[in-house]
Amino acid sequence: MGKTLAYKILENHIVEGKLSPGEEITIRIDQTLTQDSTGTMVYLQLEAMEIDKVKTELSVAYIDHNTLQTGFENADDHEFIKSVAKRHGVLFSKPGNGICHQLHLENYGKPGKTLLGSDSHTPTGGGLGMIAIGAGGLDVAVAMAKGTYSLTAPKVVKVELKGTLKPWVSAKDVILYVLQQLTVKGGVGKIIEYTGEGVKSLSVTDRATITNMGAELGATTSVFPSDENTLEYLKCQGREEDYTPLSADEDAAYDEELIVDLDSLTPLAAMPHSPDNVDSVKNIGEIKIDQVAIGSCTNSSYTDLMKVAAILKGKKVHPDVSLVISPGSSKILAKMAENGALADIISSGARIIENACGPCIGMGQSPKSGAVSLRTFNRNFKGRSGTLDADVYLVSPETAAVSAIKGVLTDGMISGESLPEISNTEFTPNDNFIVYPKGCDTENTEVVMGPNIKPFPRNSDLPENVEAKVVLHAGDNITTDDIMPSDSRLLPYRSNIPYLSNYCFEKIDGGFSQRCKEAGQCVIIGGDNYGQGSSREHAALAPLYLGVKFVIAKSFARIHRSNLINSGILPLVFKNSADYDTFDLGDQLIIENAPSQVKNDTIEVKNITKGKVYSTKSNFSDLEINMILKGGKINAIKED
Amino acid sequence: MGKTLAYKILENHIVEGKLSPGEEITIRIDQTLTQDSTGTMVYLQLEAMEIDKVKTELSVAYIDHNTLQTGFENADDHEFIKSVAKRHGVLFSKPGNGICHQLHLENYGKPGKTLLGSDSHTPTGGGLGMIAIGAGGLDVAVAMAKGTYSLTAPKVVKVELKGTLKPWVSAKDVILYVLQQLTVKGGVGKIIEYTGEGVKSLSVTDRATITNMGAELGATTSVFPSDENTLEYLKCQGREEDYTPLSADEDAAYDEELIVDLDSLTPLAAMPHSPDNVDSVKNIGEIKIDQVAIGSCTNSSYTDLMKVAAILKGKKVHPDVSLVISPGSSKILAKMAENGALADIISSGARIIENACGPCIGMGQSPKSGAVSLRTFNRNFKGRSGTLDADVYLVSPETAAVSAIKGVLTDGMISGESLPEISNTEFTPNDNFIVYPKGCDTENTEVVMGPNIKPFPRNSDLPENVEAKVVLHAGDNITTDDIMPSDSRLLPYRSNIPYLSNYCFEKIDGGFSQRCKEAGQCVIIGGDNYGQGSSREHAALAPLYLGVKFVIAKSFARIHRSNLINSGILPLVFKNSADYDTFDLGDQLIIENAPSQVKNDTIEVKNITKGKVYSTKSNFSDLEINMILKGGKINAIKED
Repeated sequence: MGKTLAYKILENHIVEGKLSPGEEITIRIDQTLTQDSTGTMVYLQLEAMEIDKVKTELSVAYIDHNTLQTGFENADDHEFIKSVAKRHGVLFSKPGNGICHQLHLENYGKPGKTLLGSDSHTPTGGGLGMIAIGAGGLDVAVAMAKGTYSLTAPKVVKVELKGTLKPWVSAKDVILYVLQQLTVKGGVGKIIEYTGEGVKSLSVTDRATITNMGAELGATTSVFPSDENTLEYLKCQGREEDYTPLSADEDAAYDEELIVDLDSLTPLAAMPHSPDNVDSVKNIGEIKIDQVAIGSCTNSSYTDLMKVAAILKGKKVHPDVSLVISPGSSKILAKMAENGALADIISSGARIIENACGPCIGMGQSPKSGAVSLRTFNRNFKGRSGTLDADVYLVSPETAAVSAIKGVLTDGMISGESLPEISNTEFTPNDNFIVYPKGCDTENTEVVMGPNIKPFPRNSDLPENVEAKVVLHAGDNITTDDIMPSDSRLLPYRSNIPYLSNYCFEKIDGGFSQRCKEAGQCVIIGGDNYGQGSSREHAALAPLYLGVKFVIAKSFARIHRSNLINSGILPLVFKNSADYDTFDLGDQLIIENAPSQVKNDTIEVKNITKGKVYSTKSNFSDLEINMILKGGKINAIKED
Repeated sequence: MGKTLAYKILENHIVEGKLSPGEEITIRIDQTLTQDSTGTMVYLQLEAMEIDKVKTELSVAYIDHNTLQTGFENADDHEFIKSVAKRHGVLFSKPGNGICHQLHLENYGKPGKTLLGSDSHTPTGGGLGMIAIGAGGLDVAVAMAKGTYSLTAPKVVKVELKGTLKPWVSAKDVILYVLQQLTVKGGVGKIIEYTGEGVKSLSVTDRATITNMGAELGATTSVFPSDENTLEYLKCQGREEDYTPLSADEDAAYDEELIVDLDSLTPLAAMPHSPDNVDSVKNIGEIKIDQVAIGSCTNSSYTDLMKVAAILKGKKVHPDVSLVISPGSSKILAKMAENGALADIISSGARIIENACGPCIGMGQSPKSGAVSLRTFNRNFKGRSGTLDADVYLVSPETAAVSAIKGVLTDGMISGESLPEISNTEFTPNDNFIVYPKGCDTENTEVVMGPNIKPFPRNSDLPENVEAKVVLHAGDNITTDDIMPSDSRLLPYRSNIPYLSNYCFEKIDGGFSQRCKEAGQCVIIGGDNYGQGSSREHAALAPLYLGVKFVIAKSFARIHRSNLINSGILPLVFKNSADYDTFDLGDQLIIENAPSQVKNDTIEVKNITKGKVYSTKSNFSDLEINMILKGGKINAIKED
């Protein structure tokens, strides 16, 4: 029986464990990346581990999230990361260089390598044939300190692409279709591996759009083969030598399979407020739009923006539409400033903002009250745009651009507009945004910590009895945005957990934080897919700070589950989902003999208030048990 | 005796009054401009006047201040302004088009015309030979409604420019030198008129830099002749037909005179925290810098940015410097995206942010804690950058660019770098950012008001006795930034006075707002040049909302004095400056027989607490008396 591409790469990196779905494995990590909004915490944790130089082949610290700088906090964070990166041998990418995933694809990603990133969209690297995984910041800190990462070996899903895409249909529509089929929890515990003749018709940046938004499936990662298109992309970046051809064996066995007929796809849109709430643009109809936003790590590549420029050339953005473009990288922007395409975009009446995540993370460009906003981004969770009553639709760059001109959601296929061919182009290497650590005296590099950068909370040894009060009874698909909101007001405080924790769960329950403080020791009851979305470990650190001891849910999203364990908070799964309904706010729960129970597959939780006993699944691996006993990963590692 | 250029233009527009320094005159206003942060209030006031179409030749509503959109408020303001502009025949310039003064210069300014703008840097238009005056929003609303503006006829100061500037010395250094000589209150009650052979060596955009920053002198406005350079600039903009040659008579008589020897100027910088705290870059020395910000209505012209591009070409921005550039207009950015200059800038490692005011008004790009920031802007008031402990230096674009590469404040003359010649260029007219009102059905245009847009406060008839408590004893040179702070946190609330008023005087006295609420009726004691800086009438409206009845100061800045009167708040000047020292917080004051006293040149104020009587100068004109009696300008106009 042949091997999948995913398992071939994992096999090349295995350090410990048996490479079989469901087994815990430890793999070697070749590269790491951080962005700034998770990064400050990552480097605080790295500092706490007291290592000298990072153990990876390459680690890069990008600044792309908090670039608005509406106070001293952002620039202080940048300075802290710059100084700590220099100290530990990490490359620093200055603000303005662009979005981490786009930049990593351009400059550092290599087929067959492993990449761990403190951002849920790290799987973008899968477009280059990498195993690129998003993880909590602490896991990334550990990967830098030790060069390894532990995870449960995932299943592999084969997505076979047949045929080729029609004009006006693009990679974004492929992943929207996959999301429609598999839903936002369809990828949990799985790697999505793309195969089939259709792969050849997709460029590396197309593939990266698809693997990027595989994060929305809840997948561990997604991966494409490395082939002639990969070689061509690397050549264009001046990195031909980084090419290795890679593919699955012809007779590889997969755990699941999905066939996508590219020929039959039409322009799609994810409707409010979930990336899997997908329908065709045609079915949704010509709704009036107020804003169009193009960019983000999903759709800000050179080819994406060149298509947008071609559509806008000689046209006028509709008077009632605010079209805003955040390019993916400085190299892309410079190239388009050379070839005239950027001039075409500006002249049409489009707004150009900095090369950064920007509006995708609600960092500026919030639409007006009640607006309809089309975005080429990856998430349309309620309120993420910064405007609570806005309706956000996720679409391709082509659909976004033609709609911006028409003023209504428009299917380019139906509109009959012509769409020029866009080919890749060669870039001149440029590292003027990079600050290198090499040659520096790491010991004597001072780490600069501004007044908003506070130590992160630490847990302690698991006590004999864990008693806690129910402070929240949450529904299904709770996102890390719900747990720890991440808007323009709060993002500057990512290095300040005490401040941030005041806003924990604020959007869905304003009294949460106060209730926790009163309860002292707390427990959260959750539904299905608890903790989906962004990888931010602040969604574990703020609850830790507030005294949350365990969470019982119907199921957990992968990264958030790890983040909870890393913080010494127990993620427990109901054996009987119906038990979920029997809890009330204020119920007093207890886990007795906790240190011995956590070693079992089943943990008994008593509801003292109701006089009931519940069975929960823990399924902790040995490493996880150790972390829980020690009160989190940092404590466990420091004792190693 | 010949006439000054200023008085020639005023004479052409006189409607009422005698054109002689100190006399009240009413002039016809040809054009108005608003920006969004003052504009929402202007259009609320225009709506309150219940007019149909504006009476000016041209009125333009620009969006350039609140463009970060970190919540729904900004976009709601934009939508409100767009709808109300359409209703009243006002052109609307969409966000992303650029900075109002730069755009007005490019597209609409005409030699010999009058322009009234709700922004203190409206005098930028003086670079084209206009009488362009910054005023409170209400004055601009009235100018739109009635086509006129009343002011005290200013004195005219002759600034004679001799010789030509050396390389690395530019228009910014000229105005910094003038500021050093005349100080921030040297222009109060005056028009600064530039003459002499040196004028010929300055382009329109150079001249506009100088007239723009004349606002920092406290001047009514500044003006240059309209000559061959003016014609050339208008030709480049495709507006040759708007040219009229204009100059002062050879034997014109001026009230004051200053000679500037351009040959002897060197690169200058305004040091923290005042634009008149000027020294040469050489004297200040090579201080280490953390941030360089290029842009603003002062220095974001095509020629400015082309010089910056030439200096940065092939160079790398210093690793410890964050260089950020906010271009002046979409046409400039598009042109530089065509000719390769923008690519040179980006490739050097510079950050490009939206065409807008941005960091100049503290709207983003706040430097790190304790940073040194070089900025090509017009104001360096403490805290205006958004970072309270940052040191901001105001410099020319040339000095900013060369310093960004070196990492230290650098005098380009001394550094010996070559500086390429930059010439003007032709622009293709483009109105894709403009929404025209023409052809629309004004009556049926719905005005869209989001939930953050609140009615503005209105005063009432002046009562017989005005009794009030001293709630603040302020020092000299209090700015409108001190009175009503304008940072990224508060700017979104410019349409919401009740919310904003909580932060009135916050930076210098955190208890102010609460003390006012407790006192009910309040009075402020001020020093010299009270209310300098930005034209924002929020610095009058918030005190009005909080119950401030009168202000007694040693002297007032022109625009703020008008704003107070427009709100029905009495600005009174101590006859004896030493009286200033005799007041204490909590003193209870009274103006008895107020309606009859305001008609006198002297108003007696009794300090009930101290048992003293003070003489204050009012010097109200008839129009002002009427406004004060009626409780403000809107009330007075509605009764006309």
